[in-house]
Amino acid sequence: PGKPLSQMEKFMAKANEIGVEDPRKVIHSMKVGLTITLVSLFYYFRPLYAEDFEVLSSMSTLMTVVAVFEFSVGATIGKILNSGLGTLVACGLGLAARHLAHFAGRTYESIILGTLVFIQAAATTYVRFFPKVKARYDHGATVFMLTFCLVSVSGFEMDEMVKWLQDRIVSVLLGATICVMVSIIVFPVWAGEELHRLVARNMENLGSFMEDLEAKCFTASKEGDSRNGESFFVGLNHVIDSKTNLENLVNFARWEPSHGQFRYFHPWKLYLKIGKLTSQCACRVELLNAYLNSTTQTPGDVTLPGAATSKCPHSRVFNFRDSHKAPQELRATFQEASSLLSLECGKALKELAWSIDTMIKLPSPSRHVTNLTIASDNIKNLLNSDSWEGWADSSQTILLVGVASLLTDIAFCVKTIDEAVNKLG
Amino acid sequence: PGKPLSQMEKFMAKANEIGVEDPRKVIHSMKVGLTITLVSLFYYFRPLYAEDFEVLSSMSTLMTVVAVFEFSVGATIGKILNSGLGTLVACGLGLAARHLAHFAGRTYESIILGTLVFIQAAATTYVRFFPKVKARYDHGATVFMLTFCLVSVSGFEMDEMVKWLQDRIVSVLLGATICVMVSIIVFPVWAGEELHRLVARNMENLGSFMEDLEAKCFTASKEGDSRNGESFFVGLNHVIDSKTNLENLVNFARWEPSHGQFRYFHPWKLYLKIGKLTSQCACRVELLNAYLNSTTQTPGDVTLPGAATSKCPHSRVFNFRDSHKAPQELRATFQEASSLLSLECGKALKELAWSIDTMIKLPSPSRHVTNLTIASDNIKNLLNSDSWEGWADSSQTILLVGVASLLTDIAFCVKTIDEAVNKLG
Repeated sequence: PGKPLSQMEKFMAKANEIGVEDPRKVIHSMKVGLTITLVSLFYYFRPLYAEDFEVLSSMSTLMTVVAVFEFSVGATIGKILNSGLGTLVACGLGLAARHLAHFAGRTYESIILGTLVFIQAAATTYVRFFPKVKARYDHGATVFMLTFCLVSVSGFEMDEMVKWLQDRIVSVLLGATICVMVSIIVFPVWAGEELHRLVARNMENLGSFMEDLEAKCFTASKEGDSRNGESFFVGLNHVIDSKTNLENLVNFARWEPSHGQFRYFHPWKLYLKIGKLTSQCACRVELLNAYLNSTTQTPGDVTLPGAATSKCPHSRVFNFRDSHKAPQELRATFQEASSLLSLECGKALKELAWSIDTMIKLPSPSRHVTNLTIASDNIKNLLNSDSWEGWADSSQTILLVGVASLLTDIAFCVKTIDEAVNKLG
Repeated sequence: PGKPLSQMEKFMAKANEIGVEDPRKVIHSMKVGLTITLVSLFYYFRPLYAEDFEVLSSMSTLMTVVAVFEFSVGATIGKILNSGLGTLVACGLGLAARHLAHFAGRTYESIILGTLVFIQAAATTYVRFFPKVKARYDHGATVFMLTFCLVSVSGFEMDEMVKWLQDRIVSVLLGATICVMVSIIVFPVWAGEELHRLVARNMENLGSFMEDLEAKCFTASKEGDSRNGESFFVGLNHVIDSKTNLENLVNFARWEPSHGQFRYFHPWKLYLKIGKLTSQCACRVELLNAYLNSTTQTPGDVTLPGAATSKCPHSRVFNFRDSHKAPQELRATFQEASSLLSLECGKALKELAWSIDTMIKLPSPSRHVTNLTIASDNIKNLLNSDSWEGWADSSQTILLVGVASLLTDIAFCVKTIDEAVNKLG
């Protein structure tokens, strides 16, 4: 008897978790509830069976609200435009199909209609396999298919048909207007703002990760490290994996009217570009992380790690602190340069994230980007100098060079991101 | 004037590409076209305005077909069960709500109904934010919300109501039956089979990648390498990223009836597990790849790579062929052992992929898994032996140990996959 209860508890815990994580989801549910109640009651007080077409149009309005009301304003407007466009085009083509079939005479009418319906349905279904159509016009395709069939095949006379269409269009418009009003006026969730925040947050996370990496791997040991590697690794995965989410948000944001600091023709594509650059940079930082933390197993210490553990089982091999085999001066110079560059990359990323978040333009080039260029040039000079020539065979040389060149590579990425952010202005 | 034409050409090229890549998509479009034409013509010959409710039920049938017909059988059946369940539960609860409101008397009826509709709509919307509900019951939630509102708020008398419901259920059943029949009988696409093939193909790709890596990095240079690293890297990304796709297919496959070699309670979850293990293994292979191909920049040869190039700009640092600094014997031994293990991992993966694909059980442990265990033990012994003690400071030691221990790690992964595949039998 305890089982359904514990199931219920789990359910409530999950519901609570979702609500706490993003309270706007609770508000959104309230908004949908309110809208649907309004529409329902509107029809409750105008009995449905009063007129022939009322049943249909009440259903249309409700269907519109249920189908169209999405979490963000952009997604809602996008679906409404899809519905509207789909309905209009379908009505036009459907009526044309009827006329065509009508001219052909009684005998061929059904054959022609059938053929046209078949072509339409097959073509629409096929077009939905296009990735771009799938992403933006999927709902419109469904509405188009349904409306075309109803219009072309229905047995209505022409005047009935026109009345039916009018009714349907009015009811869809009614539903759409209510949805847009509620979605914009009551605690709106803008896809554009979400996109903006996601891009800034990803960049900020990447910056923090780099600063953290610097603190853990390049500077002298501080035992009181407050952050733990596991959770940061997860954060980086989020940054790398957010591509689908970014693309969805860009698709939604382009439907949104001006709001707050965002004009109608806000360069959403540029956000997508910055997001992708950030994710590319995150890939390189992950590689650097793997480099710095890869296996240090010395002979006699080889254990087969379990595949079940989600974390990479290798402990840190290559740690500047422990690299007592490289010559002291060389080590110190490289450590300092790498540490500086890594720190500046992290700071520059955080600064850029701040600039995106607050929409305050940075001076170009900004302080940290300048520092980063100097630090990067410094490392390149170090690599080109002959101060370490005698040590080319040393056990640490290859790793030193590897880390240093990855760092200059990351610095280049950060500079590219800086350029893209400056274009945002 | 050339612009719309070239747009059209692009469109046709894309359409052609999609069709060539998966001809079943063309067939699917034909199937949908056929089904919709049949349903439409059925209503064409029974004029829609003959009875009051006919309009509604013709629309229901068409809507059902348009909304429910999906690419794979499992997805179609899943959506139908969602529709059915949603409709039934909504009818029951909706009627209950009406009774409740009716007992309260004229004055409070609308208030109670409004409250109930609000609670229902808000709760349903909120539950849709649950990831599990979103993945499996999203369509059902929409149908539930719509039907509940129509049933509870409609002004029908009870007997009209029952007739309306009967009509609706009959029409939905009709649409659903037609969809299922066409989807199962005419060139069916089974989600289970897709899942099965995807898991096998991913494993096969990973196996080929490892064999390729072995050929490129461990054995003597053959200039006529037919495969190119770039395209293989993309293949590996596919293996790592296929998680969402696998999860969708498992969700669809569980709705499918027995077909071909698959019984109803086929262990689809085990496929998901194998798929995830493969993707985990692919992550490690990618790390190994990065390790083997990472930067070899010597001083004086430092160039800043452009961030625009999608390929990792580092050329191969660490190549057993070129590692002329490590002592000859040590290098040869390690090269042989690593090469063997890497080859056996690749072969074992391909063998397991073949076993999944053909559903022929391998002897346990199979030949390649046995070889792989031996090769792995061999490397562990090498790492534990003191034959290379004097070379611990050598420039290649750390990398040798790193590669070797990554390989034993990958071997462990392959053995875990082998165990999971054996459970499939």
